[in-house]
Amino acid sequence: MFRTVLVANRGEIAVRVARACRELGIRVVAVCSEADRGSAVTRLADRTVVIGPAAPRASYLNAAAIIEAALMTGAEAVHPGYGFLSEDADFAEACAASGLTFIGPPVAAMRQLGDKMSARTAMAAAGLPLLPGVLDPVRDEEEAARAAGAVGYPLIIKATAGGGGRGMRVVRGPDELTKAYRETTATARQLFGDGRVYLERYLAAPRHVEIQVLADLHGNCLHLGERDCSVQRRHQKLIEESPAPGLPAELTGRIAEAAVRGARAAGYAGVGTFEFLVDAAGEFYFMEANCRLQVEHGVTELVAGVDLVREQLRVAAGMPLDLRQQDVRPRGVAIQCRINAEDPARDFMPTPGVLTEFVAPSGPFVRVDTHAFPGYRVPASYDSLLAKVLVWAPDREQAITRMRLALDELRVSGAGVHTTAAHLGGVLADPCFRAAAHSTQWVYDGAGAG
Amino acid sequence: MFRTVLVANRGEIAVRVARACRELGIRVVAVCSEADRGSAVTRLADRTVVIGPAAPRASYLNAAAIIEAALMTGAEAVHPGYGFLSEDADFAEACAASGLTFIGPPVAAMRQLGDKMSARTAMAAAGLPLLPGVLDPVRDEEEAARAAGAVGYPLIIKATAGGGGRGMRVVRGPDELTKAYRETTATARQLFGDGRVYLERYLAAPRHVEIQVLADLHGNCLHLGERDCSVQRRHQKLIEESPAPGLPAELTGRIAEAAVRGARAAGYAGVGTFEFLVDAAGEFYFMEANCRLQVEHGVTELVAGVDLVREQLRVAAGMPLDLRQQDVRPRGVAIQCRINAEDPARDFMPTPGVLTEFVAPSGPFVRVDTHAFPGYRVPASYDSLLAKVLVWAPDREQAITRMRLALDELRVSGAGVHTTAAHLGGVLADPCFRAAAHSTQWVYDGAGAG
Repeated sequence: MFRTVLVANRGEIAVRVARACRELGIRVVAVCSEADRGSAVTRLADRTVVIGPAAPRASYLNAAAIIEAALMTGAEAVHPGYGFLSEDADFAEACAASGLTFIGPPVAAMRQLGDKMSARTAMAAAGLPLLPGVLDPVRDEEEAARAAGAVGYPLIIKATAGGGGRGMRVVRGPDELTKAYRETTATARQLFGDGRVYLERYLAAPRHVEIQVLADLHGNCLHLGERDCSVQRRHQKLIEESPAPGLPAELTGRIAEAAVRGARAAGYAGVGTFEFLVDAAGEFYFMEANCRLQVEHGVTELVAGVDLVREQLRVAAGMPLDLRQQDVRPRGVAIQCRINAEDPARDFMPTPGVLTEFVAPSGPFVRVDTHAFPGYRVPASYDSLLAKVLVWAPDREQAITRMRLALDELRVSGAGVHTTAAHLGGVLADPCFRAAAHSTQWVYDGAGAG
Repeated sequence: MFRTVLVANRGEIAVRVARACRELGIRVVAVCSEADRGSAVTRLADRTVVIGPAAPRASYLNAAAIIEAALMTGAEAVHPGYGFLSEDADFAEACAASGLTFIGPPVAAMRQLGDKMSARTAMAAAGLPLLPGVLDPVRDEEEAARAAGAVGYPLIIKATAGGGGRGMRVVRGPDELTKAYRETTATARQLFGDGRVYLERYLAAPRHVEIQVLADLHGNCLHLGERDCSVQRRHQKLIEESPAPGLPAELTGRIAEAAVRGARAAGYAGVGTFEFLVDAAGEFYFMEANCRLQVEHGVTELVAGVDLVREQLRVAAGMPLDLRQQDVRPRGVAIQCRINAEDPARDFMPTPGVLTEFVAPSGPFVRVDTHAFPGYRVPASYDSLLAKVLVWAPDREQAITRMRLALDELRVSGAGVHTTAAHLGGVLADPCFRAAAHSTQWVYDGAGAG
């Protein structure tokens, strides 16, 4: 096992990774921006290196500074968390070139799965069902029109390099196509420096179901069940749960098998997530693979009783998995709510500020992953995730009730600071969510009428 | 289900019970002493009644005031927590006489099991193994000498009305008998108003193993596995875990079956605990039954995935159990540390005071049950339990490591306030504990040499 690991991230996930390292007896090097001095992870770390100013490009996206910090502190491996450099194959390669282990999948798998187009091609070859679409990027308006005819409407134009809901547009009919094509390519060029786009059938009210995959470098590959992340707002997940409510186990079992097949085909190792859309008829379609730990990995941990970051570290250190598919026995239901420092009344505008009070819920079957504490200054420079509240219960109804009360117990105060906790409480109470009648298209209207 | 329940307790267990009530949609009435105004449970409760001054006799042991508060607020049931009135059959009867449901076992079972002598007689009749002893109380020094001859040395003299380690004395040989007899009867008279004592064989280095029993009013009775509570200091449990480390499952299975047999014989209902001593040869002996929720119930909850307070409430409301013995599938290992506001350097003297800082550990598989928060004033009037830290892990070694790091993350500050966290961290690190070579006689010497 590694003796020293550098955690190349901030916020709750840096704390999460540091805890897993400590449990394995690994020395932790934290890096932080100037805005994050004194943050929670620096309290847990054996050593902290300030790598640059607050701006992500100057710190958490600054590959050279991070690698330098790792070499300077004797770290043998780098854990990238999620976001920032976690899916950057160039960074993974740069780590390797400096003799550092990048804690993530092999670079080849990252490259293949990181590009939507090559991922689709590879997964289609592995027999995963894809949405009707055109695998090759369309190069001009004429090609777009031809492809649209083949795909059928409604369809969606997506940036090949996109992700997280950015760089995509729904097209209802032929008259909207040209405008949407132009806008998407322009946006893609601007956001990702890569204007390539492709077309895919658009599902009206699908569920977002993703499979947690775990594989080692010795050919072992298994899944830890699914997560349903259909409660979204502008393509950002708000609430995640496992198992997927209302879907037959036979169906989710087939989706999981497909994910394992895809992971094997890509030569995957470590933890990864294969995302699918599931339509009302129970057909499922591969969307994309995420070559990293997910924000919502904890719901799987609670249901499966497996520490995914520990497994990541073990796999990266070359150890074989110590569990087999038949050892994975999911139990009960887990739900996660992402508590963001945002004001729902002002279109979810981030609300930075100093926390004068922070009391997390606690007690039976409640878990909180957070970097917040009383006195913490929520910075303006980063995403607004303040805490993840997770609950477990034997069934979904109990889990929903437990979560509502946990959110009710959460106390966050600070001049100007708001959170999304009450908004999420409304979602949980909504009849549509409670009946699992929602889809990714569902927008909670805040009135409890769903 | 009840519409309103009064929680007749304070501290972490009042919070625990209030949470379970809220999850079942039950209105919560808290009672508190004048010293506990503004306590954590009063924040969760729908209504709070101040029932008297700080002194327990005037408040949490004041049966009349509690029943009056229940009647005044429309409560239909009273949950006594642990300690205070939780094992007081007279209080349970007084509740019933006022039309209130006492959330605990039937009064007859409380009376039978609450008296050590009648409990021994009943459990012997049910076929539970008892330590060699004399079932009837000894009435004078001559009877004591005769009984001692029959029991053999070393033996222990125990007050019939005693419990929690109070009112007992070990006797190594005949020359110590008379003095010990006199002292024990005097102490018993003074502490419990009942001077009766009995004799029992003393085991040199036993393990304390207790079985969690759950039964309803419809004849269903099952167990949720065992807890090992062998880490004690002056008969007070410090660390509890499940399953019992190093004991064969076949043995703990037989102990659990004995407990269920005992519970059935006593007409038990609700949650209860049957305590046993297990000697080095794997023989086990019934010690006593606790007719209430235990401080350490949470380790069973984490391993079994069952909410015991929820079950208590359901059983008291007359509902049948919704799980069967074969549905109980324990998973992994759970450990609990009791964090007391005491100073280990000054013989564990309680250290009341105001908490200027209280940050509980959190994250994967960590649970904290507490009533503490920043600004909380730890009162001098009550027991010093500040928080229970629980962890779960797939195996004991991981659980121990996780607990050590959780204790390390706990931050409690306040003028004059100390905690036992670091002391417990020492116990967890001790080779004797790690090898599960300890017994109830083991005293951690603080030097890590066990």
